[in-house]
Amino acid sequence: MSVTAAKGFTAAGIAAGIKENGNPDLALVVNNGPRRAAAGVFTSNRVKAAPVLWSEQVLKSGQLAAVVLNSGGANACTGPKGFQDTHATAEKAAEVLGVGAGEVAVCSTGLIGVLLPMDKLLPGVETAAAQLSEHGGEKAAIAIKTTDTVHKTSVVTKDGWTVGGMAKGAGMLAPGLATMLVVLTTDADIDGATLDKALRAATKVTFDRVDSDGCMSTNDTVLLLASGASGVTPEYEEFAEAVRQVCDDLGRQLIRDAEGASKDIKVEVVNAATEDDAVEVGRSIARNNLLKCAIHGEDPNWGRVLSAIGTTKAAFEPDRLNVAINGVWVCKNGGVGEDRDKVDMRYREVHIVADLSAGDATATIWTNDLTADYVHENSAYSS
Amino acid sequence: MSVTAAKGFTAAGIAAGIKENGNPDLALVVNNGPRRAAAGVFTSNRVKAAPVLWSEQVLKSGQLAAVVLNSGGANACTGPKGFQDTHATAEKAAEVLGVGAGEVAVCSTGLIGVLLPMDKLLPGVETAAAQLSEHGGEKAAIAIKTTDTVHKTSVVTKDGWTVGGMAKGAGMLAPGLATMLVVLTTDADIDGATLDKALRAATKVTFDRVDSDGCMSTNDTVLLLASGASGVTPEYEEFAEAVRQVCDDLGRQLIRDAEGASKDIKVEVVNAATEDDAVEVGRSIARNNLLKCAIHGEDPNWGRVLSAIGTTKAAFEPDRLNVAINGVWVCKNGGVGEDRDKVDMRYREVHIVADLSAGDATATIWTNDLTADYVHENSAYSS
Repeated sequence: MSVTAAKGFTAAGIAAGIKENGNPDLALVVNNGPRRAAAGVFTSNRVKAAPVLWSEQVLKSGQLAAVVLNSGGANACTGPKGFQDTHATAEKAAEVLGVGAGEVAVCSTGLIGVLLPMDKLLPGVETAAAQLSEHGGEKAAIAIKTTDTVHKTSVVTKDGWTVGGMAKGAGMLAPGLATMLVVLTTDADIDGATLDKALRAATKVTFDRVDSDGCMSTNDTVLLLASGASGVTPEYEEFAEAVRQVCDDLGRQLIRDAEGASKDIKVEVVNAATEDDAVEVGRSIARNNLLKCAIHGEDPNWGRVLSAIGTTKAAFEPDRLNVAINGVWVCKNGGVGEDRDKVDMRYREVHIVADLSAGDATATIWTNDLTADYVHENSAYSS
Repeated sequence: MSVTAAKGFTAAGIAAGIKENGNPDLALVVNNGPRRAAAGVFTSNRVKAAPVLWSEQVLKSGQLAAVVLNSGGANACTGPKGFQDTHATAEKAAEVLGVGAGEVAVCSTGLIGVLLPMDKLLPGVETAAAQLSEHGGEKAAIAIKTTDTVHKTSVVTKDGWTVGGMAKGAGMLAPGLATMLVVLTTDADIDGATLDKALRAATKVTFDRVDSDGCMSTNDTVLLLASGASGVTPEYEEFAEAVRQVCDDLGRQLIRDAEGASKDIKVEVVNAATEDDAVEVGRSIARNNLLKCAIHGEDPNWGRVLSAIGTTKAAFEPDRLNVAINGVWVCKNGGVGEDRDKVDMRYREVHIVADLSAGDATATIWTNDLTADYVHENSAYSS
């Protein structure tokens, strides 16, 4: 159901000809109100694509009427002309929808350093607007795919109100957001400031803890739009939890579809002195190429987990570290623990627990194994 | 010539049976004086192997009579028994050489989390001592190999004095040193404090700027021993430069032999505001898996260079970044530059220049491409 699961939204997804292979490449999401509140979170990469610079500016009002998204080109590192193209895209959507350009966010994904074919994109916006539908969420989710093998949507329905969304992303996943575009919608009656608070809280523990390959993109955007069409204003905690659930579900779908991956790895750090320590250790483990290769080879290589922990500044004593892989404590007190041959690694999901014995804070980071397929896919995929 | 190129040193390399395949696995390097000055630099990983803990302690005196090195087992994450084994190794070498155990450093490399077969190692020390020779440097270099395809040695000879050395390492190369053991020797007449100064200055700009896969080991050790046998005390600057040259040469040999690599990548950051900025940006580029895959595919993917720069805290403006790959400025002012088809990437060495336009500091980091062979080798190589 995607972005049209919540009342008050229409969407469309079409093939505008931006992609040379003719696949869908342009999506439009429209908030028909009565409210048009919105919030956004963007890449923390300092090299930001034109659409990110534009949408960050637009979001300052806490309002959005529509979002235009395209695949087939990231419009990143494209200079002043690239920014003009983003602006023109927003103007075109504003014109056909009868709203202000300052109420239109733009998201782009695809190759860096290439200008978008505006002669195809602008007519595409008109075509998409003509196809807007309350059932268009699925098509919109399909139109934002790049190397994704499946489109990703999620919906949580509560008592009279809904949060739904779509995501694209399949690699270059790293904290500070992944190479991903996400649009979330809700018909709850919520103001922009509250949306912003709930969205930041959710992304901090979901998308920010998805780390497929440690690479951070120039285009990452997560938007949350509220139409108020349900007439219900839920309690903040309940609303924030629903947003978190949708983000968590979409984040897991990104990991499952990561380029070339054969294993999804849940890195759970427990008994850390602080949550920051837990996150730092989790990321260090999740980014260790040697460990990621070992997991690919179904080798419960706890020595590489300890090596990764040792590179952090987190509080711990080496001789009090414990590591479990799929439930077997293969490392105890910094040394050999239970028999590593007991570890069953045949399944796609692998669960690593790193016990720092230093406190009671915890954090979970999701990553993938490193495979020859990842190398192949990213050797062939040009800039 | 290796560690016996300088006068005053003898060495040996033998097969003690630590490796199951019967390959050489034990090396001994002895300083016969008249001076026995020494300095060492160790992994900055907080999870340190027993031999690192031992040798750090021993080096506090600024003196070493001998170094015992073994491949076939890292003696890391092996608890109190592992430390006792290192101690026993030093005691055995001290006994057969007639020196104090506190003058014997120990280095180990191989699998983590496995105790060494002391019933083979200790007799091996006796056998090695019986074979010590002024021509034993080459054999010693061979005995410390693990996944190395070649042994690595280097010698710089100056006016009446020499600096030589050997290294092992072929992956898990990262700053704070690589998974590498290095022993350097000189017959210059230099005290321990001066050796320490020259060694730290050299490793900071050589081994610390070799970053094959971002993974930092538990066992890294670089030792520098001076016999004074030449009777010459060179000027500090000249001596430090000779040490730097040997370290630079050995570091380059480590990169050339990195597991599964098909390209050696020189990442040169220029016009940075500070040297720290230049190193941070260079490391970020060198560790970007997507870029390393692209280079493997001979794709001059400058967008991934910019993405990597954007994750750093270095001083720069996105629209003033320039990137050259093999001499072609494919990115100018943060956008498209010269035609990327002009970039010739057929050769093993690839040269990336990242111009931050923010000052006049510079730094060079060496790394490798990321290949399916790397994944294969590190999936199969057990803990």
